[in-house]
Amino acid sequence: MAPFDPAESMADVGEFAVIDALVHGRVQPPWVLIGPGDDAAVLSSSDGRTVVSTDMLVEDRHFRLDWSTPHDIGRKAIAQNAADVEAMGAAATAFVVAFGAPADTPAASALQLSDGMWHEAAAMGAGIVGGDLVSAPQWVISVTVLGDLGGRAPVRRDGARPGDVIAVAGELGRSPAGYALWRNDIRDFEALRRRHLVPAPPYGQGRVAADGGATAMTDVSDGLLADLGHIADASGCRIDVDRASLGADHAAVADAAAAVGGDAWEFVLSGGEDHALVATFPGAPPAGWRVIGRVAAGPPEVLVDGDTWRGNRGWQSF
Amino acid sequence: MAPFDPAESMADVGEFAVIDALVHGRVQPPWVLIGPGDDAAVLSSSDGRTVVSTDMLVEDRHFRLDWSTPHDIGRKAIAQNAADVEAMGAAATAFVVAFGAPADTPAASALQLSDGMWHEAAAMGAGIVGGDLVSAPQWVISVTVLGDLGGRAPVRRDGARPGDVIAVAGELGRSPAGYALWRNDIRDFEALRRRHLVPAPPYGQGRVAADGGATAMTDVSDGLLADLGHIADASGCRIDVDRASLGADHAAVADAAAAVGGDAWEFVLSGGEDHALVATFPGAPPAGWRVIGRVAAGPPEVLVDGDTWRGNRGWQSF
Repeated sequence: MAPFDPAESMADVGEFAVIDALVHGRVQPPWVLIGPGDDAAVLSSSDGRTVVSTDMLVEDRHFRLDWSTPHDIGRKAIAQNAADVEAMGAAATAFVVAFGAPADTPAASALQLSDGMWHEAAAMGAGIVGGDLVSAPQWVISVTVLGDLGGRAPVRRDGARPGDVIAVAGELGRSPAGYALWRNDIRDFEALRRRHLVPAPPYGQGRVAADGGATAMTDVSDGLLADLGHIADASGCRIDVDRASLGADHAAVADAAAAVGGDAWEFVLSGGEDHALVATFPGAPPAGWRVIGRVAAGPPEVLVDGDTWRGNRGWQSF
Repeated sequence: MAPFDPAESMADVGEFAVIDALVHGRVQPPWVLIGPGDDAAVLSSSDGRTVVSTDMLVEDRHFRLDWSTPHDIGRKAIAQNAADVEAMGAAATAFVVAFGAPADTPAASALQLSDGMWHEAAAMGAGIVGGDLVSAPQWVISVTVLGDLGGRAPVRRDGARPGDVIAVAGELGRSPAGYALWRNDIRDFEALRRRHLVPAPPYGQGRVAADGGATAMTDVSDGLLADLGHIADASGCRIDVDRASLGADHAAVADAAAAVGGDAWEFVLSGGEDHALVATFPGAPPAGWRVIGRVAAGPPEVLVDGDTWRGNRGWQSF
């Protein structure tokens, strides 16, 4: 049962009463020494180190309120931040969240957003330990994730070496396919459209990769080729993606691509926001990972089937 | 020398080139094991615990681009977050920053904002270790601060006990006085107007208070009476503020109050954003702190000179 009448706005309820409702009854994991309600939260880490990353989501730029429910938006904001921590070989342990919204926003929407965030955080056993609630002309959500390496060495982007294989955990192409469906007002392909609203990072596979000897890793947020480009640049080597190994991803979005008049390979190779993990390994990757190419000596560049890719390479914010 | 031509916008330069310029040449403190440039940063803490807090600042709500330079805004965003960590008895060690701005924003403004953040972070020896840069309809800045307790017990809001004294480190009333001057288009009182744009938290005094036996502490962000109300509520006791002890703060803003037709006591008691620290101590406070009242048994409430305060009590976001 929602504690707010659907007609009550943030202004009606007031900042402190909304915060009370957002915090009420949430159960924090054991490493949260102090949770919400004080000037700051306090966490313990298992090895004295903390992984940290932040992302901002802006209404009509990163989500639309006529496509996503507040619950979906909350899940997405947590998922994409958690993926950054996974990509270091760590586990997300806690989040802090700042939420800006117009004063006439229903207070119930803030609670649904928070419920979505807690739903997604529960998938990895993390807590939401603090936040800020402010007035803004449109919805803006800023999430910072903290993570724990559990004694592992962090997996950076600069460790790929010639001879390594490239492998992926999670799925590619679904989020951009879903986005194209939404944009074209096509109401079929429910699963793809859902995936655009709520990505599905392969939680836990970051640690599996680190334990399995990954030499470099990142998550697919800008697009597979763009994100591999970051690894190629940081590692100073050439990366060659084998399209034949991506047949399942291509097949999963081929009908949707046809429906929107798009190119399924563009979705798989250049579409962002799937938040799969891509890593390099000196030998066979661990279970849960599939090989999609090889690292070679040469100038930093990303090839597809040994050739320059002529399509779009990925997303920039401006 | 700025690396951007003043005419170049964020869209002209592009996300990744702007980020490169923001990151270039910054020197991180020794506890930053991995700084910007990967999926996440990695920090070490001295005692295995991490303090974390977050704040969002929205253009025309928390700052105005016709009053503040980007450098001022950067300093303010860092200062108000650092104050939350000080208020736990900790030291701010690192920040992550998300910045949203229109695509036609000069790229040089982003660099000035970042320079201001680094200027303020340098005052406490902290680094800015990561961030996000996105397109937004107006400026939005979200900062998350991480802090280190250095083995101290965190100072919460719920430890005030009858008989404790209340003490303040830092100055009160200046920021609200400056705000009233700006609002009334009065161009005198430069120091007060500056203080509104860039608060001056008493860095280091949070640890001094913790070492000096503080039983409860918070920073003055919503207004002295409102913030003491949080301590009274959490600790379950009555707090009585002695106005005679605040004579210096009153005197510092009296002329400005007269110029705007305002009440200097309102600035001192109810104005927010000064980010002074207020704490309770079972005995005499340490050097740098001045006694401004007493904690007494009784229902949670904040009195002024033994009486209910009839003015405004503080700030809420909605």
